[in-house]
Amino acid sequence: MKKYNKVVLAYSGGLDTSIIISWLKENYGCEVIAVVGNVGQKDELEGLEEKALKTGASKCYIEDLTKEFVNDYIFPTIQANAIYEGKYLLGTSFARPIIGKRLVEIALLEGADAICHGCTGKGNDQVRFELAVKAFAPDMDIIAPWRIWDIKSREEEIEYALERKIPISISYETNYSKDKNLWHLSHEGLDLEDPSNEPKYDKILELSNTLEKAPDKATYITLKFEKGIPVALNGEELDGVTLIEKLNEIGGENAIGIIDMVENRLVGMKSRGVYETPGGTILYKAHKDLEELCLDKETAHYKEVIALKFAELVYNGQWYTPLREAITAFIDKTQENVTGEVKLKLYKGNLVNAGMKSPYSLYSEEYATFGEDAVYDQKDSAGFINLFGLPITVNSKMKESLKKAGK
Amino acid sequence: MKKYNKVVLAYSGGLDTSIIISWLKENYGCEVIAVVGNVGQKDELEGLEEKALKTGASKCYIEDLTKEFVNDYIFPTIQANAIYEGKYLLGTSFARPIIGKRLVEIALLEGADAICHGCTGKGNDQVRFELAVKAFAPDMDIIAPWRIWDIKSREEEIEYALERKIPISISYETNYSKDKNLWHLSHEGLDLEDPSNEPKYDKILELSNTLEKAPDKATYITLKFEKGIPVALNGEELDGVTLIEKLNEIGGENAIGIIDMVENRLVGMKSRGVYETPGGTILYKAHKDLEELCLDKETAHYKEVIALKFAELVYNGQWYTPLREAITAFIDKTQENVTGEVKLKLYKGNLVNAGMKSPYSLYSEEYATFGEDAVYDQKDSAGFINLFGLPITVNSKMKESLKKAGK
Amino acid sequence: MKKYNKVVLAYSGGLDTSIIISWLKENYGCEVIAVVGNVGQKDELEGLEEKALKTGASKCYIEDLTKEFVNDYIFPTIQANAIYEGKYLLGTSFARPIIGKRLVEIALLEGADAICHGCTGKGNDQVRFELAVKAFAPDMDIIAPWRIWDIKSREEEIEYALERKIPISISYETNYSKDKNLWHLSHEGLDLEDPSNEPKYDKILELSNTLEKAPDKATYITLKFEKGIPVALNGEELDGVTLIEKLNEIGGENAIGIIDMVENRLVGMKSRGVYETPGGTILYKAHKDLEELCLDKETAHYKEVIALKFAELVYNGQWYTPLREAITAFIDKTQENVTGEVKLKLYKGNLVNAGMKSPYSLYSEEYATFGEDAVYDQKDSAGFINLFGLPITVNSKMKESLKKAGK
Amino acid sequence: MKKYNKVVLAYSGGLDTSIIISWLKENYGCEVIAVVGNVGQKDELEGLEEKALKTGASKCYIEDLTKEFVNDYIFPTIQANAIYEGKYLLGTSFARPIIGKRLVEIALLEGADAICHGCTGKGNDQVRFELAVKAFAPDMDIIAPWRIWDIKSREEEIEYALERKIPISISYETNYSKDKNLWHLSHEGLDLEDPSNEPKYDKILELSNTLEKAPDKATYITLKFEKGIPVALNGEELDGVTLIEKLNEIGGENAIGIIDMVENRLVGMKSRGVYETPGGTILYKAHKDLEELCLDKETAHYKEVIALKFAELVYNGQWYTPLREAITAFIDKTQENVTGEVKLKLYKGNLVNAGMKSPYSLYSEEYATFGEDAVYDQKDSAGFINLFGLPITVNSKMKESLKKAGK
Repeated sequence: MKKYNKVVLAYSGGLDTSIIISWLKENYGCEVIAVVGNVGQKDELEGLEEKALKTGASKCYIEDLTKEFVNDYIFPTIQANAIYEGKYLLGTSFARPIIGKRLVEIALLEGADAICHGCTGKGNDQVRFELAVKAFAPDMDIIAPWRIWDIKSREEEIEYALERKIPISISYETNYSKDKNLWHLSHEGLDLEDPSNEPKYDKILELSNTLEKAPDKATYITLKFEKGIPVALNGEELDGVTLIEKLNEIGGENAIGIIDMVENRLVGMKSRGVYETPGGTILYKAHKDLEELCLDKETAHYKEVIALKFAELVYNGQWYTPLREAITAFIDKTQENVTGEVKLKLYKGNLVNAGMKSPYSLYSEEYATFGEDAVYDQKDSAGFINLFGLPITVNSKMKESLKKAGK
Repeated sequence: MKKYNKVVLAYSGGLDTSIIISWLKENYGCEVIAVVGNVGQKDELEGLEEKALKTGASKCYIEDLTKEFVNDYIFPTIQANAIYEGKYLLGTSFARPIIGKRLVEIALLEGADAICHGCTGKGNDQVRFELAVKAFAPDMDIIAPWRIWDIKSREEEIEYALERKIPISISYETNYSKDKNLWHLSHEGLDLEDPSNEPKYDKILELSNTLEKAPDKATYITLKFEKGIPVALNGEELDGVTLIEKLNEIGGENAIGIIDMVENRLVGMKSRGVYETPGGTILYKAHKDLEELCLDKETAHYKEVIALKFAELVYNGQWYTPLREAITAFIDKTQENVTGEVKLKLYKGNLVNAGMKSPYSLYSEEYATFGEDAVYDQKDSAGFINLFGLPITVNSKMKESLKKAGK
Repeated sequence: MKKYNKVVLAYSGGLDTSIIISWLKENYGCEVIAVVGNVGQKDELEGLEEKALKTGASKCYIEDLTKEFVNDYIFPTIQANAIYEGKYLLGTSFARPIIGKRLVEIALLEGADAICHGCTGKGNDQVRFELAVKAFAPDMDIIAPWRIWDIKSREEEIEYALERKIPISISYETNYSKDKNLWHLSHEGLDLEDPSNEPKYDKILELSNTLEKAPDKATYITLKFEKGIPVALNGEELDGVTLIEKLNEIGGENAIGIIDMVENRLVGMKSRGVYETPGGTILYKAHKDLEELCLDKETAHYKEVIALKFAELVYNGQWYTPLREAITAFIDKTQENVTGEVKLKLYKGNLVNAGMKSPYSLYSEEYATFGEDAVYDQKDSAGFINLFGLPITVNSKMKESLKKAGK
Repeated sequence: MKKYNKVVLAYSGGLDTSIIISWLKENYGCEVIAVVGNVGQKDELEGLEEKALKTGASKCYIEDLTKEFVNDYIFPTIQANAIYEGKYLLGTSFARPIIGKRLVEIALLEGADAICHGCTGKGNDQVRFELAVKAFAPDMDIIAPWRIWDIKSREEEIEYALERKIPISISYETNYSKDKNLWHLSHEGLDLEDPSNEPKYDKILELSNTLEKAPDKATYITLKFEKGIPVALNGEELDGVTLIEKLNEIGGENAIGIIDMVENRLVGMKSRGVYETPGGTILYKAHKDLEELCLDKETAHYKEVIALKFAELVYNGQWYTPLREAITAFIDKTQENVTGEVKLKLYKGNLVNAGMKSPYSLYSEEYATFGEDAVYDQKDSAGFINLFGLPITVNSKMKESLKKAGK
């Protein structure tokens, strides 16, 4: 086994990364620097530095990435309306690259020889982390213990920790596998692993009420966007982080944005998960609706195609690639006029448009109305249909003449 | 003005087509044959034959197209998951081609010289009807009174009717412009013409309860699909028409499938509409979810791209075109394994997956689980990531070497 | 007929626009201002001002648009590798918008009430001109005589001119319909109208030698690109206009870039044309080849998809649209590293890459070589294939287990 | 190392697979069954059975796959117009799956425990072979010696053979790495590994004359297609294999179809190759041209998009996947009317359409002509342009009114 002097570890304070500190030191004889990327996981961050040091790390960085996360990762993805497989709002997907980038920065700063993460060998996150490392430090070694060591289960992890007296809060109680950040909370595992099971939402949900427990009275909110970026809630200008936090609260209260899906992982298998994305779901809805007013048809339709690719790239961890950047340039250009206000009604899991307006609106009552108007000459339609339908006419005549010719 | 002997009219019994009968006879000196395509508009069909004859038609066909509508138009569109602009389930769009085709068949049978419809010159339906005519009778003349006559409003229509003593049920009361069939009910006009207005759902909705009035208790249903076609509800095998009728009832009760959108019409302007598609929304949801189990990733992802094109073609009335047919061939092939059962929970506007299974499921708990397994070697991931990420590595190294070279 | 005070006419000096001057004055009682957009049609420009005034125009603008044409229209299209229907390099398509834009500018400057063009009602150019007018002066009237007047043929045009003593150089000799500019020369009509005829290249070609008459000795050239823009030929830095002129000469000599195709016009019918694009073909080839070195796979592949849309937009005259602009933003971003040199061999219609290099090359001999290397671990392939192929494995196992279960 | 009883080897008779026989027996103690898939590699097949047995194989299958190769792999790919990265006609790509499938069939027949191939760990072919195996025998073991053994170069291979007295025809002379079949011949390696080198075509080419040595006199041929399948050459009906062989001869003589490219391999790096595909290039050209007559615009344009995906799938070895099959269903449907004759002129590397016709032609001289006609009303264009351009008008008016409002 290769030896390292100093390894930077993506640290979460959970069981996995706690025993990894020990395992790294034992196997590589190295110093371990724990790095926590704060992307809004809140309570999960408490006491992490102390915990890391106790568990054997020589140092612990807790990096506040929330602002950058929102502005450079979340907002461009909202602008794209990128949704993976029709459902997933990419909450974990775009958190990994930003953390991965910070890991590299600290590794270079600290003169580390390797970067380590605690992702399993079956998931997407290993790919997302490692692609970020390759993008910024292509020669940096990467250590993925789950792909190397002999530990195969939670039970073996606990055993490993007990043997080495690693201070962990032992809990044999099984739990869903979760990933939490400012944007979302995901749940996988246990009974969810059988898609024929209905999720036990009352046990699973943490950010949201169940549909049933959501209030019986609707909540109305107004969101203001500038160039596709949400800038104000109910008339109050807010920075992105605060805005999402508030929407999470309002959305969670009203049971907005609970998703259950069987998704296709990049690494080839399907998995099933439940996602809570209360604020994110509100932002996507409001943004998409506003685009109905502000984008012309051709742009809107082609953007739908491109959004599918964008979602794939983000899901796959290909954030730091020329294609993702080029698509972002496309999206940016489309957002120049996506400015306006959207009023939404939140009610027991439903998110309903309650009116919207934009100074750049391309909707014109004058054109759309059934009655008479000064601007649109209905006679134009005849010509339009004749030429739009000309290929159909030609095709039909060709068939007719073949039939006449007895073919 | 050209003269005709016999004109076939797409007849609905409403004000428009009632005065059109008169107008046709007056202006072309022709016999008018009224044709009603029954695509499930139900109560709107009552007394139509009598009404048509009274209003001056020489004959009235009432054609039951419901079964063909479901099997040949609705089901292929569900299989495609085709949704226009992210919201619209194409209810009016795919009803026009089937009616248009029947109009041609009757026109040919009757030896008519022209086909007439009552669509305005600003909408999509004129295109959809006329493309169908061009597809089956490219030399047939088409008469679209709204693009020709001087009548410009409902008021002028009523005046026209009164002058000629055309027996209409006079109602100056304004109403939303509606289109109803087995699949959906659409609403346009009046206060909806200003997108800043919240729709008055309690006045608008006809098929559905409002969210608030939907029951406080969830309804569970089970849908069975075979090759992407829904074949049974709650264990009972049903023909397509009955199935959709039952789902409309259950869905409407639970306020499922109410959509409000500003859409881009084919003829260039935006319009705003509210759609009720209770049963359809349930079928789309169940089908899409089942595909999560039964389609592999590459197929699922590419099908998303193709669904956008399919939706465009259907919306545009390009049903009888080689491209629509070729895409249907693609979709058909993808549906071979989309067989299984989906349980859904309906609750106050929410449609929640409550478990599903398929004999063709590609989901494998064994692969997906976090724990140990016999089939998937986590070490494979390292190689996968290295090669999947190789372009990123190469790009990164290129940049590094340029930097070193001082460029 | 509506009356106008002043009409701006897109003037070419040919028979059509010569009699249009007369026709406009006669029918609208207006002053006619002739505008010629110089997009490199060269000899066709000689004596145009004098001719326009003699034929009755009150003024004649000859606008040098060549530089803008190359930098803002041609180069972005090369960068996109946009080719319509696999063959057409869009020579006429992107010339129309720039002329149309200048027409509007002059019309506004002159206070004209309408813009007139001499395009037929069957072609694409009427659309391209008029979309440009709509983009910059949506309320400006447009006069398209060919869609209005009773003249139906060249013979009737000449008769019209003779009756009014319009000074035209009478030639009853039939000729191909041509469009010439810096980028290309197109030929349509006469025997080309039957696709079963082989084009009489020795009569048709003007910019190029026939294949047979091209020299028996190869010509080698070197092109240098910076960010996807050609900047030097054979080591000599050249402005875009001069570069294309030189390439036209070299390419024409070697019979490069002669295309024969049946294309789909926007207005619904097919037409057949022969195109000469000697310099353009060289630039496309060199640029595309260089991208093979400088673009990563994902970007290159997605750019191929996007190029199809870009070509459609340009062909359709949709240059001044948000979607065209957004796609250009995408393309721009992809070109950042498309810098380098391409050597080409020109020989009797063939254009052969004779070596290329780039400081941003992503090609690495080390990776590609069959032998041993330090950077790529062949063992990684096993893992890659296992995961890349996992969906196939899963699918195959599903089928096997169904078979075993006797289904 | 795992032990096997019987291994089926994809055998070519070259140095690699010759020593692999020995290596397999030595390392796995197994019987080795050599299988040669005859996909038209001709002279390379001579004496192979004897050679295999001499080198230690217990049995040698020589499977004639040519007919199936042409009908089930080559023709569907021509119908799709699938070209990888704008140049590569997929000659090696679609040969691997058919051989891989036969390998599995023989392995199952023989009761073998593993399948072995001699592909390097850096190329695409390992993927293509192995995906075929996974598709038909997901649990079959695969042995890829180049990813396992310590041999790193041709020199070490020869040394290995000499040590074990494996009868090989020793040649230290370096040569390009080649792959030959009925469809093409590829060349990689040596001086080609530096993209700045012009290929030494006079040394490289085997199927084709150099451009310079091709005859100075043009050859004319006529190809007949039925539903997109080539069925006759110069009036003579030919089976697919013979047709391609004849076209290879004629094409090679005239230096048709020589390609030089830097391509992106699936496994992440770029490689450079020269391809000779004389007959294939002719077939692609003729088929694509005929489609210009027989496909309507929408189908033709969308097929261009789909062809890109099809090419990717074939290149990646994903032949036996649901998506490839679904796309083939799409393509099949589009080919129903692609019937007709194309005349081509072959001259010194140039392939020129010399006239074509089809009973299903959608080209209509009547529509396309500049002069008067009975079928197309030029006035229709005005309406068409107004509605096609309506979004541009609306956008332009929105900007104007914002400007007036001082924004």
